[in-house]
This record gives sequence, structure tokens and C-alpha cells, in this order.
Amino acid sequence: MSEGRRLWLEEELQDDLKWSVQVKSILYQGASKFQDIELIESGPFGKLLMLDGKAQSAEADEFVYHESLVHPALLSHPNPKKIFIMGGGEGSTAREALRHKSVEKVVMVDIDQVVVEFCRDYLPANKEAFEDPRLEVLYNDALVELERSTEQFDVIIGDLADPVEGGPCYKLYTKDFYEKILKPKLAPGGIIVTQGGPAGILSYKLVYSSIHNTLAQVFKHTLPYATHVPSFADQWGWIMASDEPLKEPVVADLDAAIAKRINGELGYLDGRTLQAEMALSKAVRKGLAAETHVYTEDDARFIHGSGIVNGH
Amino acid sequence: MSEGRRLWLEEELQDDLKWSVQVKSILYQGASKFQDIELIESGPFGKLLMLDGKAQSAEADEFVYHESLVHPALLSHPNPKKIFIMGGGEGSTAREALRHKSVEKVVMVDIDQVVVEFCRDYLPANKEAFEDPRLEVLYNDALVELERSTEQFDVIIGDLADPVEGGPCYKLYTKDFYEKILKPKLAPGGIIVTQGGPAGILSYKLVYSSIHNTLAQVFKHTLPYATHVPSFADQWGWIMASDEPLKEPVVADLDAAIAKRINGELGYLDGRTLQAEMALSKAVRKGLAAETHVYTEDDARFIHGSGIVNGH
Amino acid sequence: MSEGRRLWLEEELQDDLKWSVQVKSILYQGASKFQDIELIESGPFGKLLMLDGKAQSAEADEFVYHESLVHPALLSHPNPKKIFIMGGGEGSTAREALRHKSVEKVVMVDIDQVVVEFCRDYLPANKEAFEDPRLEVLYNDALVELERSTEQFDVIIGDLADPVEGGPCYKLYTKDFYEKILKPKLAPGGIIVTQGGPAGILSYKLVYSSIHNTLAQVFKHTLPYATHVPSFADQWGWIMASDEPLKEPVVADLDAAIAKRINGELGYLDGRTLQAEMALSKAVRKGLAAETHVYTEDDARFIHGSGIVNGH
Amino acid sequence: MSEGRRLWLEEELQDDLKWSVQVKSILYQGASKFQDIELIESGPFGKLLMLDGKAQSAEADEFVYHESLVHPALLSHPNPKKIFIMGGGEGSTAREALRHKSVEKVVMVDIDQVVVEFCRDYLPANKEAFEDPRLEVLYNDALVELERSTEQFDVIIGDLADPVEGGPCYKLYTKDFYEKILKPKLAPGGIIVTQGGPAGILSYKLVYSSIHNTLAQVFKHTLPYATHVPSFADQWGWIMASDEPLKEPVVADLDAAIAKRINGELGYLDGRTLQAEMALSKAVRKGLAAETHVYTEDDARFIHGSGIVNGH
Repeated sequence: MSEGRRLWLEEELQDDLKWSVQVKSILYQGASKFQDIELIESGPFGKLLMLDGKAQSAEADEFVYHESLVHPALLSHPNPKKIFIMGGGEGSTAREALRHKSVEKVVMVDIDQVVVEFCRDYLPANKEAFEDPRLEVLYNDALVELERSTEQFDVIIGDLADPVEGGPCYKLYTKDFYEKILKPKLAPGGIIVTQGGPAGILSYKLVYSSIHNTLAQVFKHTLPYATHVPSFADQWGWIMASDEPLKEPVVADLDAAIAKRINGELGYLDGRTLQAEMALSKAVRKGLAAETHVYTEDDARFIHGSGIVNGH
Repeated sequence: MSEGRRLWLEEELQDDLKWSVQVKSILYQGASKFQDIELIESGPFGKLLMLDGKAQSAEADEFVYHESLVHPALLSHPNPKKIFIMGGGEGSTAREALRHKSVEKVVMVDIDQVVVEFCRDYLPANKEAFEDPRLEVLYNDALVELERSTEQFDVIIGDLADPVEGGPCYKLYTKDFYEKILKPKLAPGGIIVTQGGPAGILSYKLVYSSIHNTLAQVFKHTLPYATHVPSFADQWGWIMASDEPLKEPVVADLDAAIAKRINGELGYLDGRTLQAEMALSKAVRKGLAAETHVYTEDDARFIHGSGIVNGH
Repeated sequence: MSEGRRLWLEEELQDDLKWSVQVKSILYQGASKFQDIELIESGPFGKLLMLDGKAQSAEADEFVYHESLVHPALLSHPNPKKIFIMGGGEGSTAREALRHKSVEKVVMVDIDQVVVEFCRDYLPANKEAFEDPRLEVLYNDALVELERSTEQFDVIIGDLADPVEGGPCYKLYTKDFYEKILKPKLAPGGIIVTQGGPAGILSYKLVYSSIHNTLAQVFKHTLPYATHVPSFADQWGWIMASDEPLKEPVVADLDAAIAKRINGELGYLDGRTLQAEMALSKAVRKGLAAETHVYTEDDARFIHGSGIVNGH
Repeated sequence: MSEGRRLWLEEELQDDLKWSVQVKSILYQGASKFQDIELIESGPFGKLLMLDGKAQSAEADEFVYHESLVHPALLSHPNPKKIFIMGGGEGSTAREALRHKSVEKVVMVDIDQVVVEFCRDYLPANKEAFEDPRLEVLYNDALVELERSTEQFDVIIGDLADPVEGGPCYKLYTKDFYEKILKPKLAPGGIIVTQGGPAGILSYKLVYSSIHNTLAQVFKHTLPYATHVPSFADQWGWIMASDEPLKEPVVADLDAAIAKRINGELGYLDGRTLQAEMALSKAVRKGLAAETHVYTEDDARFIHGSGIVNGH
């Protein structure tokens, strides 16, 4: 009987590739002044948070994305106390940062208060994080808020939508932004980490290699890494950058650091998994090394509507 | 923004043809012991009532289907007082029958009380009909209820799901059923009308010509007719049958009869429209004349999961 | 096994409704300087001619469209000798016109020589028509060729693509075109007939009612008619217009005229079928009567990419 | 123009997840007595070889799959001379094996001679391999041919379709097969490697963990590894097994071994990439360790129609 009709969420991954996720029910529909907000019960990925009809985060594997976004940078820093999150309205990035015992303050800046409050109310996994007194949430453009901050941060996390044509987010991937606005707000030894878009052998040139190269113009050291995120239908990439060396980890040290510095058990990462994330495959490594494009406001690269996590 | 709207209801019209209707929201999800019940706000067709994931009725054009199902038979009868509806849980068939001033009693038999009550509460267009004291609703198998009825009816209306393999409804399309169970319950001069499935030039052989031929084995006269129902993605067919002659209407007479006998204004039918419905195209007329198949329990024809109106 | 993967041709009927036709094989792929040309073996509709990826004509039901486009106008004319076809590159429109014994000359103007020659070579049903000495084929913009013609025609047939935004065809649906360019080329008593787009109760306002109203500004009489074309997924409409009265036919007369004036047997039309085509349903009739929009170059209405027959 | 390109190949990845690959053209269509054979030019993945409507191998990333299938096992063996390939009709597995300087003989057993000859003629990348005198191709059931072989092999490679319900291939994944038929044909120190199906964090329990556990019942040592294959829409897994220890590689040694033992440059693998493949993520490692299911003919696990490489 269910064969006859099926409710599907269709996503264009590229203009020549799309996928369709079965929808069991729509748990919530609403809108802020910035975007439509939906929470969907999907067949393959459990609850899906959707903004403007795009999947942002899936119950089944958001931990892969968020652990990979947050912990490598915080573990690479000897003692991260102050964290700034650009975007991250869903709260999962803050949740992971707040697991670090050293963290004293997390400032999260997301433009959409309605989304943040929706996620606080509807995503049980993030409830505790939203109540953590160390978390300060600001509703604004992350760029504006970062610029006018008088503080410096140990780790700044870019949990922003992909640079999509027509969207404003690409400004937070430019060399000018990194150099003039972000870098001054990094404390000595500070690390920036950003999500970097698809990083598969057929997709890393869309934006990932450019974001990496742009960061490499501004910081002495970069460390790209990636892993497979099922609900994103691809390998996904992140990039750390700093003026301090970012050493690749030794497994045993990492496992010890995780045990010592992070509350609770991680679902995805351990030393070995993180080491594998940092071992990009040969073709991607070569491609990153060969990339010459630098993001500027006048020369940006864009990705087909596959934004992930918003915050701008 | 329209990129964001990517929720689709996919229906297999045939195994080599499917269509996808944009879904704006899901207004209700529930279940009875017989089936799942959903009410969906669709892009092209307004509210869609779905049973077991199949569209039953669309706000935008259910009047085409239900006026065409009900009025031709009632107008062909000189003075229809007692009506029996097999299925019709949605209430729209009863609504149309109750518009006839002559009608004194409508017995509607649908197996699923939960669906009937859902439609009563959620479909404003049928609210008044459900409150009409002339309507008697029974929750049972229409076959069982018809068999044990001690009354005879002027018009019996088959508002049943298409004969789908594995579904039980095909039993209400067989020669045995028409002959032994239904016909004895028709009052003298009584008329049976049933929905007959797709009736387009490429689809009428699926079941429509067989249902017609089956009725022609049992009744002296049949009158097939059809029209385009957008949300069914095809021309749709109905068949009247009676032992009394079923004359094709003269437009002027029909318009007068509609004005005199039916309360309110019809949305779809007038004399001319009804005359056109009865003028099946040449190829379909030839095909009906050439059909030799007769529905029996052992030799039924089935349609690809495109059931319309349930009630069994 | 075939369940696992399926090749589908996806068409957006509207921005909130699409359908998918199973593809068995691609018989031909090529391109002219105007458009891509493909011939596909489809599951439900046999061979599908596609231009720029849009289905133009289906083996299974092109006769419905082309008989309906051509014969009503030619039968409404007492003695049609000279016919002008705007578009019609496929050849099927010429084929139907040439079946009329009275016809002495058919001028067909299609902009794309490659398409015409492809259809001549690949569509067996039209082979004979292309070899008929009464047929003259010109490769040009139909508007230009009509304007510079020194002849007058008994029937001018618009077998053009729908007015689609960005396409040039909408110019051949404007009041100026009908009045200043087309009408002077009609012989006394001459008739123009054009395809008019979707004409279902939910779709006739897209362009059909406007095309009808535009013709009604220029000609004393119009006669709209429609029928269901399965591969177009909708009811389809045509409009005749003339300064001579266009009487609706009497069935017996029509059958006699078809028998007398047309070679061979028609697949779709007979008197009764044609009469039913001309009996638009009540809602569509009312809607045509209420339409006030007139096509001009500055105020055109467009249809979602569902072009049918090209020729401009 | 891109609106026009609407031909899609739809694959059900799971019953609640499907994806659609744009088709540019169909380069070949044919059939053997076992299956349909098609070669399609796809948008995202270049040429796609399809058997029975299922994608087997994509031009854009088949090297990821085939290098990962072949080289780890051959590099883990000190001096592989004789190789047996179960399936592999496409020729790519043989091609990779033949790049090893030590290899003296490759026996490839595929049931479908027509597929093998098609690939030999149509896939330029494998032309040289098919002409290599060290390659012996047999057309038969791999199980039968392996059983009756009088030789022993250094490496046996399972390049078979996934265990799909109703397909015969699952027999080549059972404990009985590995123990009674395959293991006796391994030379001392010999290694079996097989493709193992999807190995993502949400998919590894479908079959991968069971295949791994089954091999672990029969061999003293197993070594599972995985990587992302874009055209398979998931992380993909392989498993080596042997009675000799299978040590995880040290990067420097591996790079040296690749340079010394393999002709030409690998496209995907180097020491670091291979090391990352072998570092399964924490969740998958735990899941493999916890698996208790063993494949037998009476208790097999099956995967939704997503077979890859046939050969049985």
C-alpha cells in the first residue's frame, strides 16, 4: 500500500545529481523573517531540521559533523577557554564546545533568533547546552558582531552555510574577512576552524580547495580534514588554520586528551578516527596543493544549493 | 525560495509513468485500524485527502468527480427518493445526493468509521451533509450491508476504490455481485451508477471497458460517460446501468431539470457539460463495444495502485 | 531487477507538478543550430520526439492532437484549397491537411530545417505527406514568411510552441500579429485555427482564455474546443476564428462531411467526438467569457515550459 | 537549456532513499542471456556501465573502487604470483592486478561472456589488460570454477555483486563457501579479499559487518577497510582475510612498496590514503567487533538492490 504514493524530500546535490529522502511526517512548520523552518521525520536520517527547504542537520548523523567541526580545533589548542561561533543556531556546535572542561565562555552569533529558539525547544540533544551559563547567544550578523567585539578568542568556529550564489554567507569566507576582521580577534595561539563544504574526490574543487587556499594566504599553518557524512551524500571537509603549528595527532595522545579534556564519550571521534580524517586521500591532497583561487568579494566560488548550517 | 520547496508526493500512475505533486504542508496524520489517514496541503490541487498514502480527493476538483458520479443517475431517475452509497466515506457523494429535493433517505456504508469522522470534522464542504437528518451512515462492508438490507433503493451509487490487486474492492465489481446482491435491492426503475476508473484513450481498457461490459451482462441498458479530472491525471469514467432505458439527455431539458430538482448551483455540470461527458470519443466507444471480459471473482482485472475513493 | 534502476524523463508540468515517463531507449540524438533533437522510446507513449528536451509529440496519441488541430477548421470551411501552417515541422499537421481532397496547396513554414528533415526520415507516419507534391516547405520564421507572402489562404493553422517566457513564439499569439500580419493573408471566408495550450478546468487561465480573447478582438467569430491528450497530461485546447460564422456541427452532417471530404479513416474524430470537443465544460465556458486579457508584445502571458509543437 | 535536460537514472539506494543521476546519452544497449547491458554517458560520473539497469562502474571513480579492492591484498602478500578473480567481468580488477610486477597469472571467472567482450571492446582503460598474456578468462560460475581448479592462488579476489535477495551471489559470501571451497585454493600465506558493500556509519550493518564476521570464522586474521566512492553514494568497504597476520601498513613502507612493485602511478592510493582506509571510524570498528551474524545459505543478509560488480 505504501508503494502507491510516497512523500519525498528532493534535494539537488548538483545540477546533474539529486536525491530524494522519504518523509514520514512533518513535525513542525514555521517561519522567521529570514527563512522557513521545518522539522521533518525522515525515513533514512531521523529528524531533519530544514531551513528554507534545505536540510541543515539530521538526527542520525549530526554528531559526525559537529564533533568533527569542534573537537579537532579545541584539542589542538593547549587550553581553549573562550570560543566564538559564527552561526551555529542549531546549538549543536555550542553543545560540543561546552563539553570541553577548559571552556569558560562560548559566544554564539546567529542572525535568526526564531531558529535558535526553535532548536532550543525542539532538539532535546541541545537542551542542556542552551541552559549552560557559559553560553552567550547573540542575534546578529556574525561578521558585525565579531568586528565589534572587544575580546579575543582561543578558537573561532565557522559553522556557516556554504558559499551559495546570492546568499550573503560567502563574505565570511573571503581573504579580507579572515585577515581584517577575524584574525585580530584570535588570541595568541588561537585557531580558526571552518566547515569547508564537500570534500570528495569529485567535489573538493567546488569550494573546499578555495577556502583552504584562502586561509593559507592569511595564516601560517592550515590543517584540512574530512570524513563521510551520510545525510550530506558526500565526504565533508573542514579546515583549521592558525599562526601556530597545527601538528597532526598521534593516536594515543589524542585518546588521552579526549578522555581528559572532554566530558562524556564522543560518538564519532577517537584518536584513530580523527587521524583518518586528517589523512586526506592522495588526489585531494594534490588538489589542495595545486589550488590558486582565493576568495574575495569580487571573485567567489559558489556551490549548488547544498548549504548546511546557517548562521548568517 | 522555490528551490527550497522540494517536498513531493510521488504517485505511480502506471509502472512506467509517475507524477509528483508538491506538498506545502501536512495538515493531519492519523490512522484507523484499516488505513493511514492524511490531509495534505498540495501546491496544485489544494487540500488532498490521502488514505494509505493514496490521494482520494482533492479540494480543487473533487466537485468534478462527485457531481459526475451522482447527478447523472439521479437526474435520469424520475423521482429518486432512496439512495444507497457503497463507500463514499469522505461524505462528498452523500452531499451531492442530498442536494436533490426529491431525496428522502441516503444510506451510506463505509467500512472505516475513523475516516468518516475525520472527514466530517475536517472537510468544511461536507459538514452540512453530515448533519442532514436524511443521511444514515453505517460502518461496515458495503456488500454485507447491502445484502442484508430489507429495503430497495432508487439509485445505488458505487463510490468504491478501483479494483486493485490484493484489495478486496474488486468483489464489488463482479457479475455475481451485481446480479445476486445489488440488483435485487434496486427498486423498479432503479439505477446503479459506479465509478469506473480511467477512461482515456490509452487507459480505458485497464478496467473501464470490463466494468462496463460486466454491467451490460446484468442490466438491459448501460450508459457510460467520462470527463477529465485533473488530480487523477487522466480522463475518468462512470457507468450507469438499469433495466429501464437510459436516454441521453437533451441539453435544454437537463438544464431545466437541474434548476428544478437540485438545490444550489452546480460547479461543474450543466446540460451541455453532461452531454459532452456522455459523448465518449470514437475510439473509446469502439473499445467498449468490442470488450468481452466479464469480472468474476476468478477473473478480475486490476489497475495499478491508483485507487480513488474508498469505502470497502 | 528492473526495479533497482529506472531511466526516467522528467517534465515539469507546472512548478508544483511534474511527471516522469519511463525511457526504454534513446533512438536518436542530434542537434540543429536551434535546438537539440532526440527521439526516445518511452514506456507509456511509444516514440517521443523531443526538442530541447521537451516532448513534442508522442506516437501513441499525436493523432488526437493533430486531427483536432486540423480537421475542425477545414471541415468548417466549405472548400479549403490553400492552407498555411505556421510551424508544424514534425509533418503531422501537413499530413492531416493533405488528407482533405479539396486541398491543392499546403505551405508549411518551420524555422528548423534539421528537425523537418529528421522527422521526414524518422517518422514513418509522415513519409507520404512529405512526398506529396502539394506540400511546399519553407525554412524560416513563420511570421516573416507569412508577412511577405503574396497569396491568401483558406485556412491558416498555428502549430506553434506555447507562449513560453523567453521564447520568441509568443509574438505569434499577439493581437497585432493576428490583425496586421495574419488576417490580411486570409482569403474571404478564411479561418485561422491555433493550438491554445492547456484547457483543463484548473489550467485554462494560463494562456488558453487569453489566446481566445485575443482572437475575439480581431475576428467576428471564435470557436474554442478541447479534448484530453494523455501525453500532455491535461485537457488540451484549440481555437478557430473567422469573420464568417463558425457554426457548431450537427453530428450527422459532420460524419457525412468526414466521409466525403477526407481520405482514409480518422483515428480520433467523428461527428460525435468533435461535437463533444466543442462542448467545453461550464466552468471553462464561463472563464472564457469573463477573460479580459489581450496578448500584446508588452503584455503576454506565459506557460511553464510545456511547449508542444515547434515551428518558430 | 538545462531545463531541457531532464533524463534521469533513478536508483533506489534504500527503500527510503533514492538518487537520480542525469543522463546525457545512451551509448550502447544490448543484452546477454544473463542480463541487459547498457553504457550511459552520465552528467556527474562520466560513462556508466549498467547491468540489468544497475550501475556497475563509473568512469569518474571506478579507480577508487578497483585500486582499493586489489592493491591492499597484493601489497600485503610478500610475492603474489597467482591471482584468482571471482567475477570482475568489466576487466578493471584484472587490470589493477596485472600492474603488479610479481604477478604471473590472473584467472578471472565471470559467468557472462557477452559482458566481458563488451567491456573489452568499449572500455579503453581495460584494453591493455584484456590483451595481457598473463590473463586467463573463463566464462562460468566462479564457485564451480574455483572448486574444480587444481591450482592454488596467492590472492583470491571477490569482485562479486552484493548479496541481493533472489540473486545467486550470496552463496559466495557464506561460511561454507569460504571454508570448504575457497580456503583450500589459497596457497600458503594466501589472502582472500572481497568487496563488502556499504560501510558508512549508517549502513555498515546491512551486510558489511556480517561478511566480516563470516570471514573471521574461517580465517585467523581479517583486515577491514573502507573509503568513500562517490558514484556509490556511500562509504564502501572491503575485507582481507588470511591465516597469516595482516599487519596495518606503515606509510613510508607502503609508498616504497607501491613504487617498487606496481607499474605506473596509482590514481587513488598511496601509503597515507591506504592507512586512512584501514582506520575505520570508531562506530564502525565497534560495530564490527559486536557483530554475531554469520552468512549461511539458510541465514543470509541482503542489501537493497545496489549491486556493484557482477561476476556470478
